[in-house]
Amino acid sequence: MTRVGLIGLGAMGMPMARNLMKARFALTVWARRPESSRAIRAVGAEVAESPGALASHSDVVITMVTNSPDVRGLVLEQGLLDNARPGTVFVDMSTIAPSVARELAEACASHDIDFLDAPVSGGTQGAQAGTLTVMVGGRKEALEKVRPVLEALGGRIFHVGPSGSGDVVKLVNNILVGTIAAATAEALVLGVKAGANVATMAEVVGASTGASWQLANQFPLRAFNGSFQPGFMTELLTKDLDLALELGNETEAPLFLTALARQLYGLSASSGHSRDDYTSVLRVLESAAGVEVRTA
Amino acid sequence: MTRVGLIGLGAMGMPMARNLMKARFALTVWARRPESSRAIRAVGAEVAESPGALASHSDVVITMVTNSPDVRGLVLEQGLLDNARPGTVFVDMSTIAPSVARELAEACASHDIDFLDAPVSGGTQGAQAGTLTVMVGGRKEALEKVRPVLEALGGRIFHVGPSGSGDVVKLVNNILVGTIAAATAEALVLGVKAGANVATMAEVVGASTGASWQLANQFPLRAFNGSFQPGFMTELLTKDLDLALELGNETEAPLFLTALARQLYGLSASSGHSRDDYTSVLRVLESAAGVEVRTA
Amino acid sequence: MTRVGLIGLGAMGMPMARNLMKARFALTVWARRPESSRAIRAVGAEVAESPGALASHSDVVITMVTNSPDVRGLVLEQGLLDNARPGTVFVDMSTIAPSVARELAEACASHDIDFLDAPVSGGTQGAQAGTLTVMVGGRKEALEKVRPVLEALGGRIFHVGPSGSGDVVKLVNNILVGTIAAATAEALVLGVKAGANVATMAEVVGASTGASWQLANQFPLRAFNGSFQPGFMTELLTKDLDLALELGNETEAPLFLTALARQLYGLSASSGHSRDDYTSVLRVLESAAGVEVRTA
Amino acid sequence: MTRVGLIGLGAMGMPMARNLMKARFALTVWARRPESSRAIRAVGAEVAESPGALASHSDVVITMVTNSPDVRGLVLEQGLLDNARPGTVFVDMSTIAPSVARELAEACASHDIDFLDAPVSGGTQGAQAGTLTVMVGGRKEALEKVRPVLEALGGRIFHVGPSGSGDVVKLVNNILVGTIAAATAEALVLGVKAGANVATMAEVVGASTGASWQLANQFPLRAFNGSFQPGFMTELLTKDLDLALELGNETEAPLFLTALARQLYGLSASSGHSRDDYTSVLRVLESAAGVEVRTA
Repeated sequence: MTRVGLIGLGAMGMPMARNLMKARFALTVWARRPESSRAIRAVGAEVAESPGALASHSDVVITMVTNSPDVRGLVLEQGLLDNARPGTVFVDMSTIAPSVARELAEACASHDIDFLDAPVSGGTQGAQAGTLTVMVGGRKEALEKVRPVLEALGGRIFHVGPSGSGDVVKLVNNILVGTIAAATAEALVLGVKAGANVATMAEVVGASTGASWQLANQFPLRAFNGSFQPGFMTELLTKDLDLALELGNETEAPLFLTALARQLYGLSASSGHSRDDYTSVLRVLESAAGVEVRTA
Repeated sequence: MTRVGLIGLGAMGMPMARNLMKARFALTVWARRPESSRAIRAVGAEVAESPGALASHSDVVITMVTNSPDVRGLVLEQGLLDNARPGTVFVDMSTIAPSVARELAEACASHDIDFLDAPVSGGTQGAQAGTLTVMVGGRKEALEKVRPVLEALGGRIFHVGPSGSGDVVKLVNNILVGTIAAATAEALVLGVKAGANVATMAEVVGASTGASWQLANQFPLRAFNGSFQPGFMTELLTKDLDLALELGNETEAPLFLTALARQLYGLSASSGHSRDDYTSVLRVLESAAGVEVRTA
Repeated sequence: MTRVGLIGLGAMGMPMARNLMKARFALTVWARRPESSRAIRAVGAEVAESPGALASHSDVVITMVTNSPDVRGLVLEQGLLDNARPGTVFVDMSTIAPSVARELAEACASHDIDFLDAPVSGGTQGAQAGTLTVMVGGRKEALEKVRPVLEALGGRIFHVGPSGSGDVVKLVNNILVGTIAAATAEALVLGVKAGANVATMAEVVGASTGASWQLANQFPLRAFNGSFQPGFMTELLTKDLDLALELGNETEAPLFLTALARQLYGLSASSGHSRDDYTSVLRVLESAAGVEVRTA
Repeated sequence: MTRVGLIGLGAMGMPMARNLMKARFALTVWARRPESSRAIRAVGAEVAESPGALASHSDVVITMVTNSPDVRGLVLEQGLLDNARPGTVFVDMSTIAPSVARELAEACASHDIDFLDAPVSGGTQGAQAGTLTVMVGGRKEALEKVRPVLEALGGRIFHVGPSGSGDVVKLVNNILVGTIAAATAEALVLGVKAGANVATMAEVVGASTGASWQLANQFPLRAFNGSFQPGFMTELLTKDLDLALELGNETEAPLFLTALARQLYGLSASSGHSRDDYTSVLRVLESAAGVEVRTA
């Protein structure tokens, strides 16, 4: 039986842990905060003493943490790489800088360990339902070894290219999430200011050339009802947009709309919406325009 | 039998005329350029001497022309309003300023004529297939009178509110077309610069939270093959974005991303792509970044 | 003695009228609002019955009104052109579209009348002090005829080229006013958020490569003291930025920063600062960042 | 006699070294590239074996290198802090992240060493002429100790606040450099497209409310003659704008125009102007618009 180690029990990691248990994998977890581990121990998972201990008796080690330094720290400094046996596969499902993913993949390769960058799309909702889209960069053979584990977490598993590609495609996706959501917010605020009805706009645009996943799914669920419950927090989206902008700097790719959208989410954060769903960027524009975009 | 008058035989009007003939309406046309009229006469439509003559023996008068001054000129100065009988319904399917639509609706109302603003989404392709989405502003009763005519042209007919609303919703849609297409272009250029595969990105993002009609339809058909055949020309999209920006100025709605996208399409136009499909904004970013985003 | 007609007695026109009286020109005025005329009659100017009457007994007709339609209306429809004698010089000191200035210059030329576009820089302060910078487009000979009149109003009179050039150079200047003021606002808000002192920043930057007229003059006088008394109102600057953006559209010149600054001033207007000095754009950024940029 | 150590002999450091020699300080230098050291040895300076050796016999250690990691590396890892005697003053004249300046100041304080952040404005020209503006953050007493040294380098020495403030004020200045230069480029391109003369615009705007140091100095010297010789290279300005954007992220300050200007300089870099003067951003806009902004 495949022994799975999972590090990171936040809003994404916790439901993923539950889905791994449901799929009857032998699961060991480790989390920075002991209370997170306690919660998951209750449902039958092992709790490791340390990342190194976790790595030493896992076949697959999944990391679902916040950022590049976290992942690098776990792999290079907190013992994952030093304690894992050859043949182990590391699967980082966080979203990190593609260059860091490549660097870690190289470091691991020299220990005969595969490091896959495998970020996801679908948010907490997808994590709970086990319907995440997974974008995997790294050796295809390594992906095949861990595919059954990933299938417990996600509805669609894509091999997208060599190391780093998973994170690149994720950043491409999240540029679109960020720009489309902000543009949707400004288009709808204009519509309401000009007298149009929100439900009508959503229906008509949804049947037209302006349609998007954001308008069809995220806005009705998080924004049109005024809840702005995440979903995916503004501060996490801004982190991803910053990674995208850095990648643009590195590769000399022009990112005009991304840079501007980043500032709009910054405004949203400084207006108190850091930990609300990113669709709360709508609040900033609503407040500027003196209207509300609600269907209730 | 409903007698339909159609003014404007351009890339949209011509296939619309054919669909009206196919649906066996008695069709009279008028176009600024005689050669356009000649082409449509060949398939059996009447050609009127003047807009006024057309109005005098039509139950429904459709205008499909370029901009607000064109429509105002036809209605108020070139004889549509003076020659139409009470009870006639004018259906403007161009995209014009909502304030002009309201002004013309008022002018017509005093002659017992309905003026519906009924812009469309779907492009030349939708016009040919008769699958346009039609967004109708004005009296619902007037829409019901002309519904059979519109059904010959479009797959989905929405009544979206009072006069002007059709154009408002259309501008909301086209803000999203313009911003999403430009953002898609910059996201994909980044992806290619960072080593990702175009077809893979399109597939994975299409199954994720960054999905949009633009990425699923317009880019594969117009951009990924390098053709940039319209579709919908850059110069027409910029016209609509200018209308949206004016509406934002009037209503004091913030339009950050729209304003920036407008400049990107301006760059595209000044680089020679005015009459190419608007997805050719990709060319500007490709040229800046030194890559091509193609699936071939 | 040169008989001068002046139309427009707003925040700019009124002090200009006083300076013309002080310079002992025979002055006739006309203003839309009778109370404006009354105020200036008190100091000895004639008040004309109509624009036409004013034109019929003036050698120089100055217009200082709001926008292109105002000027076109006065010249073509309200009797200036029809009543002026050949040899009269029209001097439009408003800021209007260069294309309208050229159109009016042509219309006037056929009546043997010169139309100079002569917008100014310097604001109400410059108007009061008679130190306006005047940018004149049109025939140099016509400028020489009216130079003594302009010298009563402005410190520096520049002939900048043929008809329309005055307005072009004015729009170039006001693009810089708008972008520099908005950039200054965002730079200073950042500085304050990061702990720097406002007076220190103003002094040091003022002695460095970031120095500008805006930082040296407008901010200390209007913004750092929290008054935001115009000066030049946000709604007038946005009008000029809209003219600049239209000129950019016409000439296919890219105006990225201008378009974005325009949106920031729009935000300022919708936040209640339409009639405050344009430096009140600072308020919008301050409120987003939760700090104040004051020297008091 | 004050013994001065200088690390970094690039386009800025080299003329600074010459000015220190001219002012008869006992100068020791160290540079990564031996050929730089050789050039300066020729004019009489000592060359140290290592940063540590340099620190051990200097009263003042000046660093003029590229970025935050360089300075941190020199101070913490390459021996500056370990080898300097208590009472030494470190003066970092590079532009680095204010948070790094504060971190290094704290590390140094515990060794009884002052670390001043003292970035400069004025470019290579100012470095050669000894007229740099210096913005000093840190203890005022430390500044007084090194003031005679700084006076050999700069015309104006400002104490701007505690540690980190020097870099904050420098970033505020360079936001203005970057946004004003880019806005000047787009305003002038518009003017030329609309038929105005470059020299006339420069003169008139320079006497008006749009005036700036950039338009008065940098553009005539670097851009209007088509040379684009630095001055200050695009890649260095983009580095500073990135530091400013990071500072904006940290402090939650909105930086709309800065973010957009950063993308324009990115476009300039990817068009081959990384090592040209930053005014070469004009080239990108010229090429988009099909005109040249030259006075020749």
